[in-house]
Amino acid sequence: MCKTRVLSVSAAQAQFETTTIERRPLRPDDVSIDIKFSGICHSDIHIAHGDWAGGIFPMVPGHEIAGIVTAVGEKVTKFAVGDRVGVGCYVDSCGECEYCLRGEEQHCLKGAVATYNSLDYEGKPTYGGYSQNIVVTERFVVLIPDGMELDVASPLLCAGITTYAPLKRWNAGPGRRVAILGMGGLGHVAIQFAHALGAEVTMLSRTKDKENEALSFGADYFYSTLDPETFNTLAGRFDLILSTVSANIDVDLYLSLLRVDGTLINVGAPPEPSQYNVFSLIASRRSIAGSFVGGLPETQEMLNFAAAHGIVAQIEVIAANQVDEAYERILRSDVRYRFVIDTSTL
Amino acid sequence: MCKTRVLSVSAAQAQFETTTIERRPLRPDDVSIDIKFSGICHSDIHIAHGDWAGGIFPMVPGHEIAGIVTAVGEKVTKFAVGDRVGVGCYVDSCGECEYCLRGEEQHCLKGAVATYNSLDYEGKPTYGGYSQNIVVTERFVVLIPDGMELDVASPLLCAGITTYAPLKRWNAGPGRRVAILGMGGLGHVAIQFAHALGAEVTMLSRTKDKENEALSFGADYFYSTLDPETFNTLAGRFDLILSTVSANIDVDLYLSLLRVDGTLINVGAPPEPSQYNVFSLIASRRSIAGSFVGGLPETQEMLNFAAAHGIVAQIEVIAANQVDEAYERILRSDVRYRFVIDTSTL
Repeated sequence: MCKTRVLSVSAAQAQFETTTIERRPLRPDDVSIDIKFSGICHSDIHIAHGDWAGGIFPMVPGHEIAGIVTAVGEKVTKFAVGDRVGVGCYVDSCGECEYCLRGEEQHCLKGAVATYNSLDYEGKPTYGGYSQNIVVTERFVVLIPDGMELDVASPLLCAGITTYAPLKRWNAGPGRRVAILGMGGLGHVAIQFAHALGAEVTMLSRTKDKENEALSFGADYFYSTLDPETFNTLAGRFDLILSTVSANIDVDLYLSLLRVDGTLINVGAPPEPSQYNVFSLIASRRSIAGSFVGGLPETQEMLNFAAAHGIVAQIEVIAANQVDEAYERILRSDVRYRFVIDTSTL
Repeated sequence: MCKTRVLSVSAAQAQFETTTIERRPLRPDDVSIDIKFSGICHSDIHIAHGDWAGGIFPMVPGHEIAGIVTAVGEKVTKFAVGDRVGVGCYVDSCGECEYCLRGEEQHCLKGAVATYNSLDYEGKPTYGGYSQNIVVTERFVVLIPDGMELDVASPLLCAGITTYAPLKRWNAGPGRRVAILGMGGLGHVAIQFAHALGAEVTMLSRTKDKENEALSFGADYFYSTLDPETFNTLAGRFDLILSTVSANIDVDLYLSLLRVDGTLINVGAPPEPSQYNVFSLIASRRSIAGSFVGGLPETQEMLNFAAAHGIVAQIEVIAANQVDEAYERILRSDVRYRFVIDTSTL
């Protein structure tokens, strides 16, 4: 057993406090990681605040983890002490079902074990990355490519794969027009991936405040969604719209921006049910889809692709005692574009 | 000009009456067709009743047309007098846009001209198949294969292509589990296509009244959607659900029947907006899609495929003076499974 300092909340909506937990003794296929940086995902807030059902408290959030390997189990083959590694949203899965076998562990039929707020297969709660150490089976660990700093890499473990996977699956690439809706933690990474994949990229954001940054990330165009003219100008334009927003949107209005066979992909999860008129789909054979994260092979592919194209998250590094404030700022959209906790401050 | 007898309604909700209209003089690329049978599509009722915006009256409905060529223009190359032919939902399109060029005339950027209740490119109203004659440019005419009777062929011009096109596009075939929701004019044809394409087919219908017929059409399984246990038994089962119903459904409940990457395809159009929870999509990377009819090349392909597999509509032939009653019976779901007007009774 190994004690480690963590940031935890004792109940929904509670303030964070620094406490100590024990990580499990190293199993033969385990990797022990000295966590250096842990990104703050918007979903951390929903889960820590109890917005979604099933909060397990005390809770240690965090599934955007970057650190250094400090020990490996005797059967570990992919990692060695000193390796720079990452851990994302999952830390275990059955390894045997059709989805695990094809590297889509997030769809494991037994139910993949989430990095925090989950029960592992022994029934014990999992604790996430707002911590100085984590022990993870090697199958759920990825290498952070040389030359990519750990702090700017950490958000890619969730925000990166969440946007890269659907862009790849729905063929963002040369000759395709892609809109990214919402320029936050997900959106600012999505622009970079869509651009690097070769698509024409349009950023759709409420105000024009972030226009210059969007263009610097690789957007070809920027439109304000508060301007009604935007929806006339862009009618029938896009092959894909990747919606990264977690607010409810006027689905029919966004569907009207899609051309024939276009797809509106949701990676943000609005709190209320969404509404659409079936005619909006039928008329131009459009689709509404959803996607979340990706499997381990694709997560490694994403990191390698990001490194090859110089893609990282734009972050604000904070100390452990600033997390409550950071949550408030995220809820006010006052972050460009991801908070990352320096866990040495724990 | 050629006078022809038609069934028309003078206003929304009016009773049908037998009147006479004039078809246009034959243009060089026109085909004149002696209509023998005209299917009654559920959408005819919505349009004739003014349920949808934009009714043009007097109206002659009908876009499931089967008949015999009686004259051809001088430049017609594909058809000769005496050919057995069909006409579906469209009678013209620009012929030049990207969709027309790839044979997807239903998505014509200029706007395809519908067979009835539309304005042609000269601004004249179009009149449909509840008629003894129609004049159509040859590009919008298809051959009815030898051995397929005209009466049972006519509904394929809409109900057939409406179901065949999405089943093909979303890869209904060997190893795929397909559910057909709703066993009416579209659904009973969809079963046959999905089965002939090699998919495992499950019929989802309110009551079990139609179970034996569904199995005779090629369904492997039949479940009642009124039985809550159906949704437990079939959870996560299907690759595709083809919804042929025009009533609103519990979208999340049906999405729960889809496996990872599954798609709920709407070909029926409910009157009210539909609701879904984004989590229903995100959790298993599911999609909601819509589709309507298909282009001319695919319509011909559909007829040839149907002929090769013995697929036809199961119909009840009626006389012209029974159409009002037939509309009422359709609204009560009292038809197995398509009414077809014998236009010789006009």
